[in-house]
Amino acid sequence: MLQGHQSWRFDQQPVILSAASVVGPDECEGPIAEDFDIGHGDLMVGQKSWEQAEKKLLEEAATLALERVHLSKENIQFFIGGDLMNQIISSGFTARTLGIPYFGVFGACSTSMESLALAAQFVNSGSAKYAMAGTCSHNCTSEKQFRYPTEYGSQKPPTAQYTVTGAGVAIVAAEGDGPVITRATIGRVIDMGITDPFNMGAAMAPAAVDTIQAHFRDFRIEPGYYDLIVTGDLGRVGYDIANALFDKHNFPITQTNYYDCGLMIYDLNKQTFVNSGGSGCACSATVTYGHLLKRLKKGDLNRILVVATGALFSPISFQQGESIPCIAHAVAIENRGSAS
Amino acid sequence: MLQGHQSWRFDQQPVILSAASVVGPDECEGPIAEDFDIGHGDLMVGQKSWEQAEKKLLEEAATLALERVHLSKENIQFFIGGDLMNQIISSGFTARTLGIPYFGVFGACSTSMESLALAAQFVNSGSAKYAMAGTCSHNCTSEKQFRYPTEYGSQKPPTAQYTVTGAGVAIVAAEGDGPVITRATIGRVIDMGITDPFNMGAAMAPAAVDTIQAHFRDFRIEPGYYDLIVTGDLGRVGYDIANALFDKHNFPITQTNYYDCGLMIYDLNKQTFVNSGGSGCACSATVTYGHLLKRLKKGDLNRILVVATGALFSPISFQQGESIPCIAHAVAIENRGSAS
Repeated sequence: MLQGHQSWRFDQQPVILSAASVVGPDECEGPIAEDFDIGHGDLMVGQKSWEQAEKKLLEEAATLALERVHLSKENIQFFIGGDLMNQIISSGFTARTLGIPYFGVFGACSTSMESLALAAQFVNSGSAKYAMAGTCSHNCTSEKQFRYPTEYGSQKPPTAQYTVTGAGVAIVAAEGDGPVITRATIGRVIDMGITDPFNMGAAMAPAAVDTIQAHFRDFRIEPGYYDLIVTGDLGRVGYDIANALFDKHNFPITQTNYYDCGLMIYDLNKQTFVNSGGSGCACSATVTYGHLLKRLKKGDLNRILVVATGALFSPISFQQGESIPCIAHAVAIENRGSAS
Repeated sequence: MLQGHQSWRFDQQPVILSAASVVGPDECEGPIAEDFDIGHGDLMVGQKSWEQAEKKLLEEAATLALERVHLSKENIQFFIGGDLMNQIISSGFTARTLGIPYFGVFGACSTSMESLALAAQFVNSGSAKYAMAGTCSHNCTSEKQFRYPTEYGSQKPPTAQYTVTGAGVAIVAAEGDGPVITRATIGRVIDMGITDPFNMGAAMAPAAVDTIQAHFRDFRIEPGYYDLIVTGDLGRVGYDIANALFDKHNFPITQTNYYDCGLMIYDLNKQTFVNSGGSGCACSATVTYGHLLKRLKKGDLNRILVVATGALFSPISFQQGESIPCIAHAVAIENRGSAS
């Protein structure tokens, strides 16, 4: 199952049997709003705190993913979840609600594909019949925790990104209908010395490029193999840097088959408050489990590679002058039959 | 490989090829001090901050574990690490130093066995040739983050526990000399409504009992199969509660073969400042990778079950009045030949 230095090949083709995406008000105004399953007009989601709201989003996505395929919580062996909150409380409390044996994971915004890669590996190796991968983020909990008190309304530079409010969950199974997970590449930490938390795209772009190049090296395939390669949340600034790095490395990726979830979830021209684009664990999770899986189902896309990117810093590491270590994990999802 | 509802059976018997433990000054005064590989007399470990010191402990343990078996970082496919810090920065920064493809995990103090279970599963399924599992904690970083500014020297109740300063790392391989990992049981979140962060043992005990009973149910073996069952860090209060729960459930565990790492690492009668005992990710990690593996090597023990326990709360969930969700993950380690 190990392929090359840092990748997994899933010969049993674990299937994404079910998925669900839940978003908040700003995502409901974006260009792919129709593809999300549940949209909330209220950032509080009827809860008493933003933290409870964030947890509620993940619980809703998990519940909906189960209901869609008439599975109960007892059918799922493992829930693999993580989020941006200190001690990943949104996932821990959701795991309490679900009662499913739980692996907490943390890869910042790369958590979406870290958890999906593990779910696929569990099913592929016979370590689970059903595994659930899920993640969430909330604009207000993240702003409050990582930046300034949300009520300040502090000014941001145009390089800043906007944390997506939402949650995405996938149920991976050994058999059933749905697209299959064929490959994963696990990233190593890349740190180019960037210290500005208002420019995460620039910090994360080299990690995305490193993992993407490792993926094609490990599997000996060409970028054109995929109909679409998306990074998680580099935003406008990071996306341009990633493209420049591919050019510099003579890596044959083209802007026709490479894009970024952070640029897809919002209309950057109209929703100017998002500055450089979307970010947060829920960015790649909702775009993948909402939008991209629907495009796979339509046959508009047949083979995609999702490369979720994460910045592994904390406010305290920033305050102590450390730079921002970044990581990216890639997972390939293909329509059955188109996988080779 | 899936066994029962929430367990894994490792038929390929992945081996703990190498392990290393590093501790701080208080652990050097405890009854099992001789079994640790590196002991620091200075809580700063020569660094400028406690956070940097904590990271240094993990880096040292990883480096020593590699050196012992003449492996280089490039030989290891995956580093699975986590810790108590917000955004698990100690592990993320160590992953940067190591450059090994990285899975960040978080299960609070259960992280030691969460990461070891995953490392064993990766090797057992052919998803890695070598996988490294590691975790760390530091008394001062934890006190500062979870409780009060360390300099306050705030009074604590006798139910409180003392975070271990240390790090433990294991390298799991498909073949080689060393004890083998035979089974793992992944815990579900248990929350009995306890809200007092100065009484984590009481909060975690039911989770430990739940996982231990699930382990024996899934594998249809008796507690007496193991020479020793240890929980991670229940301390005196939690250990007594766990024993009471076993009694109540008529579960045939005896105090001759069940003990707790939080009671082993310190001398509770002399080191009275530890109150109810040790805690932190490094508690079960250093006791297992330092003390218990040495006892397996001597043949004093042949089969052990390590049940690391974690409290999945955060200061913010506590401040918002939430109770403390807890979890425990169990991993069985046996001398080759004694495994059945």
